[in-house]
Amino acid sequence: MNKTGVIVLNAEKGAEEKLYEIAKRKGFFYQSSEIYGGLTGFYDYGSVGTSIKRNIENLWRKHYLGLGDSYCEIEPADVMHEKVFVASGHLKNFTDPSVRCTKCGAYHRADHVIGDAIGKSVEGSSSEEMTKMIKDSKIACPKCGGRLGEVKVLNMMFPTKLGAEEDTIAYLRPETAQGVYVNFLRQFNILRSRLPMGIAIVGKAFRNEISPRQLLIRQREFTQAELQIFFDPEKIDECKNWDEVKDYEIRVLGVGETKETMMRCDELASRKGIPKFYVYHLAKQQQFFVEIMEFPIEKFRMRELSKEERAFYNKIHFDAEVYLDGFGEFREVGGTHYRTDHDLKGHGEISGKSQEIFYNGKRFIPHVLELSVGIDRTFFAAMSLFYMGTKEREWEWFSFPEGIAPFTYAVFPLVNKDGISELAKKLYDGLKPKHTVTYDDSGSIGRRYARSDEIGIPFAITVDYQSLEDGTVTVRERDSTKQVRKHISAIGEQHAKNTSTKA
Amino acid sequence: MNKTGVIVLNAEKGAEEKLYEIAKRKGFFYQSSEIYGGLTGFYDYGSVGTSIKRNIENLWRKHYLGLGDSYCEIEPADVMHEKVFVASGHLKNFTDPSVRCTKCGAYHRADHVIGDAIGKSVEGSSSEEMTKMIKDSKIACPKCGGRLGEVKVLNMMFPTKLGAEEDTIAYLRPETAQGVYVNFLRQFNILRSRLPMGIAIVGKAFRNEISPRQLLIRQREFTQAELQIFFDPEKIDECKNWDEVKDYEIRVLGVGETKETMMRCDELASRKGIPKFYVYHLAKQQQFFVEIMEFPIEKFRMRELSKEERAFYNKIHFDAEVYLDGFGEFREVGGTHYRTDHDLKGHGEISGKSQEIFYNGKRFIPHVLELSVGIDRTFFAAMSLFYMGTKEREWEWFSFPEGIAPFTYAVFPLVNKDGISELAKKLYDGLKPKHTVTYDDSGSIGRRYARSDEIGIPFAITVDYQSLEDGTVTVRERDSTKQVRKHISAIGEQHAKNTSTKA
Repeated sequence: MNKTGVIVLNAEKGAEEKLYEIAKRKGFFYQSSEIYGGLTGFYDYGSVGTSIKRNIENLWRKHYLGLGDSYCEIEPADVMHEKVFVASGHLKNFTDPSVRCTKCGAYHRADHVIGDAIGKSVEGSSSEEMTKMIKDSKIACPKCGGRLGEVKVLNMMFPTKLGAEEDTIAYLRPETAQGVYVNFLRQFNILRSRLPMGIAIVGKAFRNEISPRQLLIRQREFTQAELQIFFDPEKIDECKNWDEVKDYEIRVLGVGETKETMMRCDELASRKGIPKFYVYHLAKQQQFFVEIMEFPIEKFRMRELSKEERAFYNKIHFDAEVYLDGFGEFREVGGTHYRTDHDLKGHGEISGKSQEIFYNGKRFIPHVLELSVGIDRTFFAAMSLFYMGTKEREWEWFSFPEGIAPFTYAVFPLVNKDGISELAKKLYDGLKPKHTVTYDDSGSIGRRYARSDEIGIPFAITVDYQSLEDGTVTVRERDSTKQVRKHISAIGEQHAKNTSTKA
Repeated sequence: MNKTGVIVLNAEKGAEEKLYEIAKRKGFFYQSSEIYGGLTGFYDYGSVGTSIKRNIENLWRKHYLGLGDSYCEIEPADVMHEKVFVASGHLKNFTDPSVRCTKCGAYHRADHVIGDAIGKSVEGSSSEEMTKMIKDSKIACPKCGGRLGEVKVLNMMFPTKLGAEEDTIAYLRPETAQGVYVNFLRQFNILRSRLPMGIAIVGKAFRNEISPRQLLIRQREFTQAELQIFFDPEKIDECKNWDEVKDYEIRVLGVGETKETMMRCDELASRKGIPKFYVYHLAKQQQFFVEIMEFPIEKFRMRELSKEERAFYNKIHFDAEVYLDGFGEFREVGGTHYRTDHDLKGHGEISGKSQEIFYNGKRFIPHVLELSVGIDRTFFAAMSLFYMGTKEREWEWFSFPEGIAPFTYAVFPLVNKDGISELAKKLYDGLKPKHTVTYDDSGSIGRRYARSDEIGIPFAITVDYQSLEDGTVTVRERDSTKQVRKHISAIGEQHAKNTSTKA
């Protein structure tokens, strides 16, 4: 365990400390309520991080809401009725096994401590079984080496009490999904009763994690982007746009396999027997990470979860995983969950309002395919994957793709006199309406290149004396560090991929 | 009191019921956790409402973050350290006076009940004073007419307990502002120590209102968009862009005045003695509502708050208010607060980390000007102001400006055969990357016009047999209902103001 609370396994030591150091210094993210010593499991996004996070969220919206015509976003409240979580099963089942050290008093996730000690997952074991494992394998406190107590199960939801008497109990949602399910019938009417229907939420979820760790990977407050697709279960083997993906290769790690393989979508459907509707969306999930986020395919995989690993209501479940050098391991960044009619059925039973629809001449409860992306984890994976260290230069830098970089352009006046800063300002103001752009007029141009590299800005434009004469400026490309002169009127013509909040 | 919990004063009766009815039916917003009977004070935005809300948020970002070069957005966690609210004073002072009916048991905001009964504001009165007022004026329960009890003071923050022992108490932030203040020093470094510096948050805030009411106006969970501008207090009478606004007229209601007047910015500065830096930003606030949101100026005002009405740390305070027909009254939608160094000073004292900076050769704590906009209230005001009822047509409609309409275009194929729907789909797919557009192929064209009017879509485009021959389509303009034929290639050329999530 290191000072950021990260357990480093087989990893390049110090890699994620370096990342956290630059994250704090340059405004990507840092511990929340920092001046008060921080709040464990909560992080704040600084100005640079927020810009990148917005870009990821907007790229997500563009990709996922574009998957169908009856696809849209809703924004339900974060605080929800207690009965929502009776129906979903969270009140009963959304628990974590916790174990306390009898010596130092520290709390640990029992399954993590045992898993780390015996080298394999114990997901699904009961608290009695885990208490026994700790005794049998003589597993000690990872912090102080003291004796661990009994394993106890704790609900991970945050309750809140409403009203003057505080007699109404409600919960901060532990996942965005339920916000869609309780709105299903109303939205089905609003979108005029068509299937498949896709309803997305991009928003916060809250979980009282026993031991938050690994920076943005396991937080108590985090952002999910999830699309719930409602469809007719009889049509699960039909897929309108199948031709678009049938030859597309997905990097898969099947249950029991030790090595990833590239599998064509039609192989996944025919050899593995996975329904086409599912495979199509698995492809679309990979495309988000590999084509839109531009994560290298060799650091990405779709890992199939076994029956023991997946939730009982998930009939098919692949996690999208990214290899993080800092951890020396793959980490989950998303999931594709075939949740069947589990949730709608539960809400129908507990609310007494049938969730059946009449569609295409029959009455049924639609099934749900959930495409889930953890925005913070994807953000963190991007930081990790595009972090170049001090490769080929004297400062740290990030090679973010244009679509996610915090700014597309940095504009530098060579000097702040002789009309140069006026021209640079004019360029800056002209780019602002359609692009994300920052202005930097202090220090040497070299120092300014370093500063823009440190937050991964793809293009740095310098306005100099020649600009005053012939209207050309120097465009310095981040990755190659090549400098070319271009006419000022050509700047911004080609690059408008960035969708940040300042756009 | 009507069925939506709204007290109607001098208002066109039923106006806001009508609004809520269409809001539910067309997917603007509706009570949260509706299938479980709803959760008081919480609302969900449906697909149409979310699109409009995103537009408002993005217009806000564009306008406010464009006010300066060192202006940016951050995204701190919603859950914050207890000490944040010791420093800000919320733990001690963020309270509401509550009174319970001894007969029916209902809770009421004591100041509201008394204010409604005696016809003037009692803000600032103590609980003893209010208990006396109820007795003296014989004020009864507004619900059942029963006798009201003692006035008690309740803190409005939602606490949450963290960790396995639930021994750490944190709070859901009751305002976004504190998220900026605790990040001030770090962001000042990140943005390389320049003043004025503007830090914005667009995010949720949570308040345990005793009696939530008036639909989106007083909720327990709501979205604020706030820009905190840090500046050198010695420069409060300086304003770089003063010329831009000096002749601009603000619609003002001063303290003690009964009628609004249009006042030029330079009059506000010279005659009223309000510092230029404040007046400039007051003008920018009005421009957001009047020019960008396109609220009619005669329904808008900047109301100056008296010393008794404003918080003790607010040295100057004007509220942006909009007249809502449904309530027959003005309602606050934003505020411009000169908070001085109150918050930073508090955080410096409680955290022990001085918030002083060294800037321009001197050491000081910057002052803060807060530009605050309630996104839900602005959304609701837009619904109210642009609701046309059944004026000039047989169905209800909204005259939303293009910038906030949920979609810019609706595309209709006249029939679903003979290649017409293919051409319509092609137009729809072609518009999607740069515009917000919806597709509707069911029912008569008249019925489809009605449907698009009901959610305020500015342009409806019909593809018909003539389109196949000469490539022209019918463009029907919502407000005038005029129909003109245009070539299909000209659609979308002029209109790209809409910034929704599908853009």
